[in-house]
Amino acid sequence: MNDETSRAPLAPAIAARAEKVAPFLAMDVLARAAAKERAGDHVVHMEVGQPSAPAPRAAREAAKAAIDVGRIGYTEALGIAPLRERIARLYRDAYGVEVSPQRIVVTTGSSAGFVLAFLAQFEPGDRVAITAPGYPAYRNILEALGVEPVTIPLEKASGYVMTGAALEAAHAAAPLEGALAMSPANPSGTMMDAATLADVGRVCREKGLWFVSDEIYHGLTYGAPAETALRFDPDAVIVNSFSKYYCMTGWRIGWLVVPERLVRVVERLAQSLYISAPYLSQVAALAAMDATEELEAVKAGYARTRAMLLDELPRIGLDDLHPADGAFYVYANVARFTNDSLDFSRRLLDEAGVAATPGVDFDPIDGSHWLRLSFAGSFEECREGVRRIGAFLR
Amino acid sequence: MNDETSRAPLAPAIAARAEKVAPFLAMDVLARAAAKERAGDHVVHMEVGQPSAPAPRAAREAAKAAIDVGRIGYTEALGIAPLRERIARLYRDAYGVEVSPQRIVVTTGSSAGFVLAFLAQFEPGDRVAITAPGYPAYRNILEALGVEPVTIPLEKASGYVMTGAALEAAHAAAPLEGALAMSPANPSGTMMDAATLADVGRVCREKGLWFVSDEIYHGLTYGAPAETALRFDPDAVIVNSFSKYYCMTGWRIGWLVVPERLVRVVERLAQSLYISAPYLSQVAALAAMDATEELEAVKAGYARTRAMLLDELPRIGLDDLHPADGAFYVYANVARFTNDSLDFSRRLLDEAGVAATPGVDFDPIDGSHWLRLSFAGSFEECREGVRRIGAFLR
Repeated sequence: MNDETSRAPLAPAIAARAEKVAPFLAMDVLARAAAKERAGDHVVHMEVGQPSAPAPRAAREAAKAAIDVGRIGYTEALGIAPLRERIARLYRDAYGVEVSPQRIVVTTGSSAGFVLAFLAQFEPGDRVAITAPGYPAYRNILEALGVEPVTIPLEKASGYVMTGAALEAAHAAAPLEGALAMSPANPSGTMMDAATLADVGRVCREKGLWFVSDEIYHGLTYGAPAETALRFDPDAVIVNSFSKYYCMTGWRIGWLVVPERLVRVVERLAQSLYISAPYLSQVAALAAMDATEELEAVKAGYARTRAMLLDELPRIGLDDLHPADGAFYVYANVARFTNDSLDFSRRLLDEAGVAATPGVDFDPIDGSHWLRLSFAGSFEECREGVRRIGAFLR
Repeated sequence: MNDETSRAPLAPAIAARAEKVAPFLAMDVLARAAAKERAGDHVVHMEVGQPSAPAPRAAREAAKAAIDVGRIGYTEALGIAPLRERIARLYRDAYGVEVSPQRIVVTTGSSAGFVLAFLAQFEPGDRVAITAPGYPAYRNILEALGVEPVTIPLEKASGYVMTGAALEAAHAAAPLEGALAMSPANPSGTMMDAATLADVGRVCREKGLWFVSDEIYHGLTYGAPAETALRFDPDAVIVNSFSKYYCMTGWRIGWLVVPERLVRVVERLAQSLYISAPYLSQVAALAAMDATEELEAVKAGYARTRAMLLDELPRIGLDDLHPADGAFYVYANVARFTNDSLDFSRRLLDEAGVAATPGVDFDPIDGSHWLRLSFAGSFEECREGVRRIGAFLR
């Protein structure tokens, strides 16, 4: 535990479990892009996974009104009652699923949702299936909490989503305690249809695994709407957020749906690890849930940009794309141009002024020849991005 | 891992490490008090550890202005640069200690600060000294992360604070990897003077322990100002918050000061576990730091209430109090009246309409005959509280 080189007489060491947590390369791209902009260059931002639109007007007005009222205090650890009730109603309205407000846990973004769920569900040493490519924080949070992520590589033949068969095979190879799936997915935009969700749910039920369903991109779909795992596994833990569809990233507000037997456990953990989610964000989120017209207009903008990208990208040589059925990303195969997506993304930024995220952020192995392009920005910016990438590739 | 009673065919179990996390009894008192109020009764609130004053006007105006500007996005994981710079300046202005802004980590309340610090510092199985009485979340967060809290009971003879000698004795009995001290302390208001802090720092340096100093009540002192552990151990990790002196509980915003070698590790952990602290709260906190006049007026109110309590409480039979040198609590010995502070606090609420926190929240053993009274509320409310407690005790 002691590292005697850095300070006399005895300097305690950094924890090994923390040392092995990987950085978000996307954040490094962001920093590099910011430096380029400070130097006077123009950068097209296709690296950031956040809407360029602000939170709905009603949400912002609600926050301002709460500020005018005065004290902004702690709330109940599980969140303010009206927000928990409103979220429960969303499940009836959007999915036809009855969920008691008691099962809703308001969290400080989905980030807090994962920490609370994983702590309540998994022991140190437990094994949880995740996918590659996938959201990099899954692996990092699990590892920080002593839980072992088990990677299931996604395959083109199965539409780049986790399947019941793949989960069953992973569990047969070495027993798992849980499975974590995301639909629509980051970085790929792929979606699990009802049959696939049902199949993964069935395997979880048969094998006694926790099913964690990350539904943070629900609402942002361009064909069939997303299905919630709750329809197929009432014991599933749902992670969701106001960051994406509701355009509220920096407010840090999200929610969990947990089975009844987890409510009190999660409440006790939340009391100590978070106390409560930020009050203003809870108030604003409640108002955002009724801002459908404004939010659908934002989504229509994504749909237009997406259509342009799916049309234009193949013309500049990026013709192997994951199906971008939801979210606001295109995951593009760049194997024809590079075997080192990190270096490629750096050159793309330095030489062409386009910030994009290297696939290695999402998949340490195959990610070396993939690139994630976000279309959460404006149509015009994305079109300029395509133009620049096209010139760069030529 | 399977609990077959609750759902067929196989329902996964709750993690044992989560099951053993204790609830905040103060929160239960709060819920009971709310139920009493809904029934039409008036309750004097002396249970809550949060200021009744709102955040400074400048902080609220800064948040509203940021809302008007528009998008509220993620920030750098370590926080916005102006806030990190302003916090670094606080160390020069208030303590005469030079701290680089690079060592400041803006966190989602001190809650996030503890999680980040503990993960970066301690391995599962490591042992960390805490005090009894003490803030209950310490124990719960450490245990959730697989770290063993080692309790040092505080003694009247040493002014109810952790001492170097007590820490050394605990380390000799079974090796520790860290020590966590708080000054001014919750629930007691006791403070470590420069000599005591220096002594604890010396033991940490000599034995190679991490020194974590919770300085969340700095600024709220009624005699000598609080000393930062950084003056005595440059390797100490400082946890602080805008919740108490700056009256910003529900904003969930705080900070860490970490040694340089921890910065990048904490940054990577924060990227995955939090992404960033809430943007509005960062902007508001920056403005709050210059609202000295308003905040000192709030503090003068606490001082007046504290003087009244220290005068009145002995007259109603509560004459054995921890020295309330800082924070906004009086920790009172109620052994003459009860051996069950939880039951006592329930009766005090039900029969006298005063909400107070049972000592068992802070000390599972000796806490059974102590009660914490908060004077973060108004003078008038606290005076009425004393009147009701007096009548109840008679």
